[in-house]
Amino acid sequence: MTVGGLSEGELLARIFPRLHGGNATRDAGTLLLGPGDDAAIVAAPDGRTVISIDTQVADQDFRLEWNNGYRTTGYDVGWKAAAQNLSDINAMGARATAMVVSLTMPEDTAIAWVEDFADGLSAGIRELGAPDCAVAGGDLGRGRELAVSVAIVGSLDGHAPVLRSGARPGDILALAGTVGRAAAGLALLESDVPVETLSPEQRELLDTQCRPRPPLAAGPLARRHGATALMDISDGLVRDGTRMAAASGAVLDVDPAALTALAAPLRPAAVLLGADALEWVLGGGEDHGLLAAFPARAQLPAGFTAIGSVKDPAPKDSTGVTIAGKPAHTVGWDHFAD
Amino acid sequence: MTVGGLSEGELLARIFPRLHGGNATRDAGTLLLGPGDDAAIVAAPDGRTVISIDTQVADQDFRLEWNNGYRTTGYDVGWKAAAQNLSDINAMGARATAMVVSLTMPEDTAIAWVEDFADGLSAGIRELGAPDCAVAGGDLGRGRELAVSVAIVGSLDGHAPVLRSGARPGDILALAGTVGRAAAGLALLESDVPVETLSPEQRELLDTQCRPRPPLAAGPLARRHGATALMDISDGLVRDGTRMAAASGAVLDVDPAALTALAAPLRPAAVLLGADALEWVLGGGEDHGLLAAFPARAQLPAGFTAIGSVKDPAPKDSTGVTIAGKPAHTVGWDHFAD
Repeated sequence: MTVGGLSEGELLARIFPRLHGGNATRDAGTLLLGPGDDAAIVAAPDGRTVISIDTQVADQDFRLEWNNGYRTTGYDVGWKAAAQNLSDINAMGARATAMVVSLTMPEDTAIAWVEDFADGLSAGIRELGAPDCAVAGGDLGRGRELAVSVAIVGSLDGHAPVLRSGARPGDILALAGTVGRAAAGLALLESDVPVETLSPEQRELLDTQCRPRPPLAAGPLARRHGATALMDISDGLVRDGTRMAAASGAVLDVDPAALTALAAPLRPAAVLLGADALEWVLGGGEDHGLLAAFPARAQLPAGFTAIGSVKDPAPKDSTGVTIAGKPAHTVGWDHFAD
Repeated sequence: MTVGGLSEGELLARIFPRLHGGNATRDAGTLLLGPGDDAAIVAAPDGRTVISIDTQVADQDFRLEWNNGYRTTGYDVGWKAAAQNLSDINAMGARATAMVVSLTMPEDTAIAWVEDFADGLSAGIRELGAPDCAVAGGDLGRGRELAVSVAIVGSLDGHAPVLRSGARPGDILALAGTVGRAAAGLALLESDVPVETLSPEQRELLDTQCRPRPPLAAGPLARRHGATALMDISDGLVRDGTRMAAASGAVLDVDPAALTALAAPLRPAAVLLGADALEWVLGGGEDHGLLAAFPARAQLPAGFTAIGSVKDPAPKDSTGVTIAGKPAHTVGWDHFAD
């Protein structure tokens, strides 16, 4: 049975009960008015709302069927929509309070796929640890290609946001979560290695691409520990690090030993595919790890690993990312140019 | 020159200066942190955020080239994105404070088209009368079909929202803005009547479809005048009225004389196309007029016209829309079923 046979109202009636997990905190007062009117109302306890939007499009951001035979499930797409949006709020040091979801689908999309999407969205919110984040409303429409846009709002609960522009020379550069695993998973999905033959470790890499697990506790925790800068690594360590460096007017110098440690668990997959694990670490972003800077004498909070330090640009040199002082040239994913 | 030749950053650099109109109120304190970080920060002065999301997809919600030869401009799509989202906030009796915009484009989309989109979005916000609404951020991506999702947030400024569920028997049913004009414009766009041959009046109907003008002052004004229910007519007077009736547990009875008055200016176009002006009035929604209920003795605020009254459902009868007591069967647009 496909969505073409249902009205928007009938389809919404199939979806909303499945989002109950995400709406469990309606009782906690986050969601003041839920779906069903022209707009929803969400609590903004400190008089500010943190807001972001992210879109995934089939055949651009994911394939419904990959080269290795894996079929992207509705659950995957829902989970990833939750993960990438929650990560943006986390990267401000904030707490997610609500999402609104727009789903565009071809008419022949199975209703079961949409229900699976709702389950994945709800599970992502719950399992990634965003108990206050309600699904406040949404929009369903038809289109030739499957696409999902999620806008998310969050609360800073009276605290200052942690921006990407605050890194200062002398700061410790640190990472929470992972980098490179989703890129390795993508390489497996695009490879000729059948999905059925993957080892448990390889399958976990694939899962990081399809169902990333951003470290949601790390954002507010970093804020409480005095982080000077914070950023979601969605486009790759070097590309996003370059943005933090530019915003901060600094150089982010990465320790080669830290890169080697990050690359080590990826080496078996890299060997299998004839790829370079270090390139995944430097260029892969979709793990949604968190890049942070902390004052030099700070004790890093749990979940963060030091990977380098923040430096002053040499006179006449520009900002950017260096590895043991040498410019890093590997670049991450960009939507329009390579 | 097409978007395929630019990075996301380069394209954003073309767009942001054009959104300055929409961001003019950054000085007024609405936008606390603008584009450029993981998320933006918007003021929510009364501790609540009203939020909604809407998506337009090419060849579903509009055609890039219509049957009558009209080509939808980037300006049209930007304006309509602003209008339909602003209308959702208006329909809660609230004031729009910020939008985040996700634009998905084929690689061969002209950069000029995207710049025109930004101009239309900005002009829509400014000219429709939402001076506090900033463009807080966004997301650009590639896709096979052009699509735009906008999420919008607004403030109730300490007041209670006006829901669609508050209409009470004895209330006056009233309309602000128009109904049926966008549907007439759509019929002209889909007709064989070349766009160049349209009279000024016909061209205005076409413009209502491509650049709707929701009555943005009417929402907060209705709230101040004690409106008991309020709703954006995006899917048609009968379809949306039926939703208000169901939410309110009431019958909305429309005065045939009011319908005749609404249909009168559409008759020349209806005659030209062999269509029924009354069907446009009953079923056409994209004008984004505002349907409201006011207490019986209320003086209607400027811009509202009485079109009927709210009644108790007869025993055993269901809620719904009636015309002089008879059930209205014409239905408006629905995304999945007819």
